[in-house]
Amino acid sequence: MRKYSDYNEWYLEVIEKAALSDKRYPIKGMNVWTPYGWKIMSFIDSCIKKELESTDHDEVLFPLLIPETEFRKEKEHIKGFDTEVYWVTHAGLDPLDVKLVIRPTSETAMYPIFSLWIRSHQDLPLKIFQIVNTFRYETKQTRPFIRVREIHFFESHTCHATEEEAQCQIEEDLEILRKIASQLCMPYYLFTRTEWDKFPGAHYTVGIDTVMPNHKILQLGSVHHYRTNFSIPYNITYEDENGEHKYVHQTTYGMSERLIGATISVHGDDKGLCLPPTIAPFQIVIIPIPGKDTKNDVIKKSEEVLLRLQKAKYRVKLDNRNIRPGNKYFDWEIKGVPLRLEIGIRDIDNNVVTFVRRDNGEKGTILLNSLESGIDSVLKEIIKSMDEKAWKFQREAIMSITATNDIPTDTESTKLKIYRFGWCGDSTCGHEFERICNIKILGTPYFPEDYKGKCIICGKETTTPAYAARTM
Amino acid sequence: MRKYSDYNEWYLEVIEKAALSDKRYPIKGMNVWTPYGWKIMSFIDSCIKKELESTDHDEVLFPLLIPETEFRKEKEHIKGFDTEVYWVTHAGLDPLDVKLVIRPTSETAMYPIFSLWIRSHQDLPLKIFQIVNTFRYETKQTRPFIRVREIHFFESHTCHATEEEAQCQIEEDLEILRKIASQLCMPYYLFTRTEWDKFPGAHYTVGIDTVMPNHKILQLGSVHHYRTNFSIPYNITYEDENGEHKYVHQTTYGMSERLIGATISVHGDDKGLCLPPTIAPFQIVIIPIPGKDTKNDVIKKSEEVLLRLQKAKYRVKLDNRNIRPGNKYFDWEIKGVPLRLEIGIRDIDNNVVTFVRRDNGEKGTILLNSLESGIDSVLKEIIKSMDEKAWKFQREAIMSITATNDIPTDTESTKLKIYRFGWCGDSTCGHEFERICNIKILGTPYFPEDYKGKCIICGKETTTPAYAARTM
Repeated sequence: MRKYSDYNEWYLEVIEKAALSDKRYPIKGMNVWTPYGWKIMSFIDSCIKKELESTDHDEVLFPLLIPETEFRKEKEHIKGFDTEVYWVTHAGLDPLDVKLVIRPTSETAMYPIFSLWIRSHQDLPLKIFQIVNTFRYETKQTRPFIRVREIHFFESHTCHATEEEAQCQIEEDLEILRKIASQLCMPYYLFTRTEWDKFPGAHYTVGIDTVMPNHKILQLGSVHHYRTNFSIPYNITYEDENGEHKYVHQTTYGMSERLIGATISVHGDDKGLCLPPTIAPFQIVIIPIPGKDTKNDVIKKSEEVLLRLQKAKYRVKLDNRNIRPGNKYFDWEIKGVPLRLEIGIRDIDNNVVTFVRRDNGEKGTILLNSLESGIDSVLKEIIKSMDEKAWKFQREAIMSITATNDIPTDTESTKLKIYRFGWCGDSTCGHEFERICNIKILGTPYFPEDYKGKCIICGKETTTPAYAARTM
Repeated sequence: MRKYSDYNEWYLEVIEKAALSDKRYPIKGMNVWTPYGWKIMSFIDSCIKKELESTDHDEVLFPLLIPETEFRKEKEHIKGFDTEVYWVTHAGLDPLDVKLVIRPTSETAMYPIFSLWIRSHQDLPLKIFQIVNTFRYETKQTRPFIRVREIHFFESHTCHATEEEAQCQIEEDLEILRKIASQLCMPYYLFTRTEWDKFPGAHYTVGIDTVMPNHKILQLGSVHHYRTNFSIPYNITYEDENGEHKYVHQTTYGMSERLIGATISVHGDDKGLCLPPTIAPFQIVIIPIPGKDTKNDVIKKSEEVLLRLQKAKYRVKLDNRNIRPGNKYFDWEIKGVPLRLEIGIRDIDNNVVTFVRRDNGEKGTILLNSLESGIDSVLKEIIKSMDEKAWKFQREAIMSITATNDIPTDTESTKLKIYRFGWCGDSTCGHEFERICNIKILGTPYFPEDYKGKCIICGKETTTPAYAARTM
C-alpha cells in the first residue's frame, strides 16, 4: 500500500481529498479547519469533554494572552518556551507597557488565579480543563494536524493536597485516556520521559505515543506531575486541617489535534480516510441502487431506512445524487464513512439491506425486520476489528535489540522499528545512545515490564528496558 | 429594586456572587470564564449552533492571526479597526517579516480563502460560521461580558450570486435571531444603523439592540450586507451559467457574549441571577425538607424524584448538603435556577412535590403521578412569563418625543428613555441631533413602522421615525 511505502505524500493527499483542512492560509503552519475536518475534531472534543466531566473536571476558559511578568515566574518553564512563543507588543497604535505572550500552554495564565481560588483544604482537589487553541512558533517543517503553529488541544490542570493525591490523579488521567483511545480505536504506549526530555518545570512526564505507518512515533499528548514546582513560584497554598499553610501538588494532562492526525494515519488506507464510528460525521451512508422501472421503490425504501436510522440516533446520510453508485462509493470511501448500505430491488424483495464495511471491505446483509440491532452489531464489530488491527500493527512495530548497530543510520530507512533495549538509566549512557544512533529515547515503560538485560551502552545488568524511535 | 436604582453595582455583584466570571486576571478586560458562567455560555452557543446548522451553515475554524498584508486590503475596514487591534510582532526571539493582527473579526482571514473555494455558481451559496474569541483593544471602561478585550462570539459569513439572494440571507438571519432570542426570553429591536455608524466596509448594518435596566441600550450583535465591498478587494468571483465572471455578494452575522450580559441584566433581580430554563446549567434543584424522624423518607423520595427527572432529561440537582433549607434556597436563587422543588413529609403524604418559581416566586404543587408533565408545563410557563415581562419592560422604555429638550442632558439621568422621533434621514440633521442631545441615533426601524411626523431638527415632514438612546 502507498500508505506504507510513501506515507508522507499519502497523508497529505488523504487530507486534501477528504477536505479535512486547507493549508493555503497565508501563514505557514496555520491551517483552516474545513467543515468535515472540524466536525471530526468536534466529535473527538465531545468525547474528551464527556470523560473529563464524568470525573468531576470543570470546564473553564482562561484568557489567551499572558503578561510577560507572569510568564517569567517559573524559570525552567520559560526556558523551554523562550524560542517558540508569539509576542504581542502593540495594541492599536501604541506599544504595550507589558508585552503579552500568546498562550503556548496555560500554566502561567492559570496559576496566578489558582492562588486566589485556593484557600483551604476544602477547596481541594481543584480539577479544571479547557479546550482551546495554543500557539508555538515551530521552526521544523509543518504538517497538518501533526506539526502546526496554531494547535487545537485540551489541557486539564489539577491541584491536590499531597503528592500521593496528585499521583492518583495521574492514574485517573490514564484511565480517561484508555476510554478516549478505545473510542478512537487508537493504540498507544506510555513512556516516562527521560530527565532531559520531560516538560519544562515538570517533576516527571508521561508521554502518550503512537506508531505511524512509517514506524515513526507520534506523541499524542502527555501527563505531567509537577509536585510543587509551580505552586512555589505562583504561591498556590492551602491551609490544612491543622491551620498550617502548604503548597499544593499539581498535575496537568493534555492531548492535541494530533489525535485526528493519528486517526488518519493509523486507520486510513489507499482508498482514503477510514473513521471509527464514534467520531464519524456520518456513520452510515445509504446508496440506492435503482434498476430499470424500480427507481421509485428503491428510493422509497431508502428513505424509509434513513428515517428509521435517524430515529435510532445514527448519523446517517442518504446519497440520492444523480450519479452512478460506483462514483458514490468512491466519494464516501475517501470520506471514511464506516458503513455503506446498498438498497436495490433484490434487497427489497429479500427484505434486507446490503452492507459494506469501510474498514475491511466485508459485505453482508441485514434483515430489515431487525435493522437497528443489525446495524448496531456491525458497527460494534467494526470498532472491535479496527482496534485489534491497529494494536497489532503497533505491537509488531517493536523490535528488541541488544546492540546499537541494529538501528539503521538512514533516518528515512524503510526498515525502521520501535526499539526496545536494556538501559541502566544513567543519563550519560542515554545521551551516548541517542548520539550514536541519531534516535530519541522515548523513555521507560510507565507500567513496569518484565525485563532482564544489559545496558546497551555500558553493559550493566538492568531490569528496565528503554524504548527508542525516530519521531514525527 | 437595586437592579433599577443602582444597575452598575448590582450587575457586578450578581456576576461575583453567582461566580460567572473572575475579573482578577492580570490583564484589564480579559476575564476568566469560571465553570458556571462558561456552562451558561456553552448552552447559548449550542442553541446558536443548532439554529445555524439547521439552516445549512457549516462550522469551520479559521486561524486567529491575520497577516498585515491581508488585513489592509479593504480600506474602510482597516480604518475602522486601526486603533483597536493587537499586533504580534515577534516570534521566539526574532522579529516577524510580516506583522500579524489578532482577529478583531474574520473577514480578512476568511476572504482570501473564499476566493480559492468559490469557482462557479455551483459553489454558491457558501454559508459558514465559527464560534471563537476575538480581540479588541478597548479604551473605554471595561465591564464583564459587556465591554471586554477578549470577546467570545459567533460570526457567520455567506456568499451569494446576487444582491437579492444576499438580502434573503439577511431575512434568514433575522429568523434565526428570533428563534435564539425566544429561547433566551430576550427582547430586542432591529435598527438599520445610520451611514456614519455602520460597520466598516458594510453596505448597510442592522443592529440588534436590547434595553438595559438603566434604559441604556446594549447592542447584542449585528447583521451586515456587504454587497461586493469585500469581494472586489479580495477577488471573490464565480462563473455564472453563461460563463461570465462576477463578484459574489456577501453578508455577515454575529452576536457576542453580551448575550450572557443581557441575560443577567434583563432577567436578574435583587436576589441574583434568574436564568431561562433553556440555558440554565441546572433547570431544577431539589431541596429535601427533613422533619423530625422523617429524614430517611424525605431523602428517599428526593432521590426518587431526582432519578425520574434525570431520566426525563432534565438538568437537575439534588442539594443534600447538611445545612438549613433556607440557606439552600438563598444559594440557588443567586445561581438563578428556574425551578425549586421542596420535598417534605407533608408532600409525600399528599403525593405531591412543592415547587417555587425563581422568576416570580410563585408557589404550587405538582402531583407525583404526573411529575414529568407537570414540570414540563411549569417550565414552559416560566419561559412564557419571562419573555412577556422582558418585552413589556422593553416596550415601556420607549418615549415618543417631538423636541430635543425632552431628552435629559445628564448622561446618568434616572429619567432616561429610548427616544422615538421624526427624522428626515439627512445626515446633517442626524449629526446635529446627536450633538445637541449628546446621545446616539440607533437608526431607523429595520421593519418599517407606521409613522407620520416632522424631523426633530429641520421640521420637514417624514414617515420614518428614528430611535436614539444612550448606550452601554
